[in-house]
Amino acid sequence: MKKIEEKRSSGLKIIPLGGLEQIGMNITAFEYEDSILVVDCGLSFPEDDMLGIDLVIPDITYLLENADRVKGFVITHGHEDHIGALPYVLKELNVPVYATRLTMGLIENKLREHNLTNVKRKVVKFGQSINLGQFRVEFIKTNHSIVDAAALAIYSPAGIVVHTGDFKVDYTPVFGDAIDLQRFAELGKKGVLALMCDSTNAERPGFTASERSVGKTFDALFEEHKNTRIIIATFASNVDRVQQIINSAYKFGRKVVVEGRSMVNTIEVATNLGCLSVPDNTLIDIEMLKNYPEEKTVIITTGSQGESMAALSRMAGDNHRKISVGPGDTVIFSSSPIPGNEKAVTHVINALLEKGADVIFQDVHVSGHACQEEIKLIYTLLHPKYAIPVHGEYKHLTAQAKIAKDLGMEKENIFILKSGDVLELSEDYAQITGKVVVGDILVDGLGVGDVGNVVLRDRQHLAEDGIIIVVLAIESGSDQLLCGPDIVSRGFVYVKESDELMEEARIVAVDAVEGCLDRGITDWGKLKASIRDSLSDFVWKKTKRRPMILPIIMEV
Amino acid sequence: MKKIEEKRSSGLKIIPLGGLEQIGMNITAFEYEDSILVVDCGLSFPEDDMLGIDLVIPDITYLLENADRVKGFVITHGHEDHIGALPYVLKELNVPVYATRLTMGLIENKLREHNLTNVKRKVVKFGQSINLGQFRVEFIKTNHSIVDAAALAIYSPAGIVVHTGDFKVDYTPVFGDAIDLQRFAELGKKGVLALMCDSTNAERPGFTASERSVGKTFDALFEEHKNTRIIIATFASNVDRVQQIINSAYKFGRKVVVEGRSMVNTIEVATNLGCLSVPDNTLIDIEMLKNYPEEKTVIITTGSQGESMAALSRMAGDNHRKISVGPGDTVIFSSSPIPGNEKAVTHVINALLEKGADVIFQDVHVSGHACQEEIKLIYTLLHPKYAIPVHGEYKHLTAQAKIAKDLGMEKENIFILKSGDVLELSEDYAQITGKVVVGDILVDGLGVGDVGNVVLRDRQHLAEDGIIIVVLAIESGSDQLLCGPDIVSRGFVYVKESDELMEEARIVAVDAVEGCLDRGITDWGKLKASIRDSLSDFVWKKTKRRPMILPIIMEV
Repeated sequence: MKKIEEKRSSGLKIIPLGGLEQIGMNITAFEYEDSILVVDCGLSFPEDDMLGIDLVIPDITYLLENADRVKGFVITHGHEDHIGALPYVLKELNVPVYATRLTMGLIENKLREHNLTNVKRKVVKFGQSINLGQFRVEFIKTNHSIVDAAALAIYSPAGIVVHTGDFKVDYTPVFGDAIDLQRFAELGKKGVLALMCDSTNAERPGFTASERSVGKTFDALFEEHKNTRIIIATFASNVDRVQQIINSAYKFGRKVVVEGRSMVNTIEVATNLGCLSVPDNTLIDIEMLKNYPEEKTVIITTGSQGESMAALSRMAGDNHRKISVGPGDTVIFSSSPIPGNEKAVTHVINALLEKGADVIFQDVHVSGHACQEEIKLIYTLLHPKYAIPVHGEYKHLTAQAKIAKDLGMEKENIFILKSGDVLELSEDYAQITGKVVVGDILVDGLGVGDVGNVVLRDRQHLAEDGIIIVVLAIESGSDQLLCGPDIVSRGFVYVKESDELMEEARIVAVDAVEGCLDRGITDWGKLKASIRDSLSDFVWKKTKRRPMILPIIMEV
Repeated sequence: MKKIEEKRSSGLKIIPLGGLEQIGMNITAFEYEDSILVVDCGLSFPEDDMLGIDLVIPDITYLLENADRVKGFVITHGHEDHIGALPYVLKELNVPVYATRLTMGLIENKLREHNLTNVKRKVVKFGQSINLGQFRVEFIKTNHSIVDAAALAIYSPAGIVVHTGDFKVDYTPVFGDAIDLQRFAELGKKGVLALMCDSTNAERPGFTASERSVGKTFDALFEEHKNTRIIIATFASNVDRVQQIINSAYKFGRKVVVEGRSMVNTIEVATNLGCLSVPDNTLIDIEMLKNYPEEKTVIITTGSQGESMAALSRMAGDNHRKISVGPGDTVIFSSSPIPGNEKAVTHVINALLEKGADVIFQDVHVSGHACQEEIKLIYTLLHPKYAIPVHGEYKHLTAQAKIAKDLGMEKENIFILKSGDVLELSEDYAQITGKVVVGDILVDGLGVGDVGNVVLRDRQHLAEDGIIIVVLAIESGSDQLLCGPDIVSRGFVYVKESDELMEEARIVAVDAVEGCLDRGITDWGKLKASIRDSLSDFVWKKTKRRPMILPIIMEV
């Protein structure tokens, strides 16, 4: 930290506070002298070992310590991994938020849910710039799997940094314009200090197909399945995808029902902002379904990732109150499983097939991220001095670094950063000059950060082998065993079948306690340790398991 | 069950006791009058919600109830999902086991570990038949990702059933002969009543590439990475893969170290049985690694699925005592992730890349299972009357059913069974005539079946939100509160930071207890329910969490 202080005036600092080494939780601070701006403020979903955790947000200690210099949040697009932590962070750091139309619409929904009505915010148009202290930030049109995605040109006294956000190059987008390649070219002519480019698909050769190609697939599928109801699962936030389903439904004279809370919310916001156009009398309420022949209806639903509580999973599991799936249904997954969700998705597919539905789960989706040829295009237009691959795990970042090298960039001008690194750069030099505090803050229910490593380790321990509780009462003063030890277990073994084992365990505990008391050991810590050790040994020998052993001593 | 009794003499019964609706736990009973034979006896790995479970074995109640008729186990090949439950099942049902050479070698390893030395067993050669009551079973050479895989022709008075086991068609296998297609053709000429064919790859078009093609890839990679150490992770049981790595190593003058217990075991068994040939002075002990230049060594290791305790994961995590990975290493994943393991594999890849290793994880693997064209080949050679797709989830089974239909089979002659279905068939008819008990028996440590749904639900509950324990002591007779209630929690919230919350919780518990006692309620069940309800309400309001609440009352 000291080092950073000393160098404060010499260059632009780029400090990723999350989003590297992982998918999600994107947040990056840009700092020049007295000005800090923050790009994105996303959440990530818990890793498998974060038991019981709902979501994860970034540790913003660095921003709080420098709160007086933070000018605002600039948001690239409305996905959870870019906006999801905003309501939590804004509670601690109330600064203005800048975003494009739909992005702001989705942010406002969140702020309302969290009763954060006093946050200053401004909707920015493409091509428009905002001034934030020593910075100017220009919003540039891109394409992505959500409408109104922006790249950012960040002008600082040290030079221009372009941050692509999540993007793809779509020459024939469904809504709005294609990515503003001309503006990228102009910036390249001006001279770009650094490019921070989306790495998600950097391992994939070629060019991502246009969103519009999925529309053609829908038309073909609607033509082929004229005689069945059609249920389509996709990402709630993919407004263009929903638009194309609605278009096909309208073309084929079908009514559309939207199911799943997040889907309904997004469609409402998008429609109100003019990002989605629905022909009159096309959307119907779910209660009206029964008034139409099945083959004249389409259901657009959440659950494309096999999420157990989402609408599609409930339909597949016979837990949906209003829709039941059967042989007369064609179910289309317009999505591909996000890594980690493969098994859950397959589970839902199997369940739908077992109900007799026709299930289509391949080739009805295109990615929202740039593949290798698109990444090369952006590098070639911008011709940056430095490359800082962003958005992705280490393997994605290295894949983009390789692309940059193949395009002729010097290895020492390519930076694969870690969250917390302070990269300082100017026309003359670029180097990592420090490190700031970063980390995962776990959100569980209403608790933000009250579940840490100790609690998680306990949950893992409990999950693995359960708990054995040993209670006993000791007479205050005399140190006589008044009662117990009694043994209660949960999650360890089916007790009815193991009466004998539990009785033996009780005797082991009794022996441990009496052994201590006989030897005059009355220090509760030692007494507990003795119970824990002897019971742990006994249980391991008998079962090869290691339940948590929790002695509780009451003083009566 | 009654119905089955009545029909006993009329046909052959095929009763899958596991392995359908899932990958793994393959076991199928064939029954004709007084004779039952069982094909395979595999385990499956626990689903994500089976917390703390080590492995899952089939419920063999049906076999135990008919133990006097069970003639033996016939095993197709040596993978865990076909042999893994044998040691558990043989403890309850000691009948002979029949298998080919390597398969039996791997089974014997297991029996030794479980001290099951008195099991009768017989090694069967390809082309050889064994008689089991009314059945004769012929072992037919196939190809798979393990040496000595067999298909079975099961001759019964009702007709011939062919069970392919797991297989592919490899015209140029690494070890031994190609699949015995001529024998399949002869059986087809004779007339096959039913075909039970591997469905694992039934969704994939085309033809699975030969195992030998991976050898060419190894040669090319060894040529390309002449100046680095090479570490290759693959499946421990894939002897042919290991053979090809050894071949390339020998060709390029490298010494080979084998690391990972299961890998060492398999190689030992395979070498002893002559299924693996290692040139002299090629294998070296891990301790000798330091005596050779790095670029003259190859390490073959377990961990290709990202298993956290496997050798490669320990190398990636700096937890391996003898091997550390760095910029001088090329790490090759000769495998593809089994569904569900994608994230774990990626995690290891990222960690290795961060250490500076070159990591190759695509296109150094071929599947061991038949794709669509191979499945069509087998159907066409055998021309079965009935088709019973096996080995796979529902979507794989339906994909094979579609292939059978495309080949001209009647829909009513294709049976997608569920575990427990009793399919009765003869030349004249085939129908599901009953249902037997099937299920998952969970193995946790030494416990087999002592963790059931109640314990699992408790573990899930504990994992999600932890536990709050409320202890109090009541005076025997007087029903006076002597001591407590005290509150202890684990896995709920970081208590140091939540003293206030826990103190409030204690007061809620005190109020609940005193409220009951004041009203003269001394029934312990009611007292506990009152504590549980009021504390649960309080905690939910404060935290939106639902920890397990466990009141313990001591009578002093």
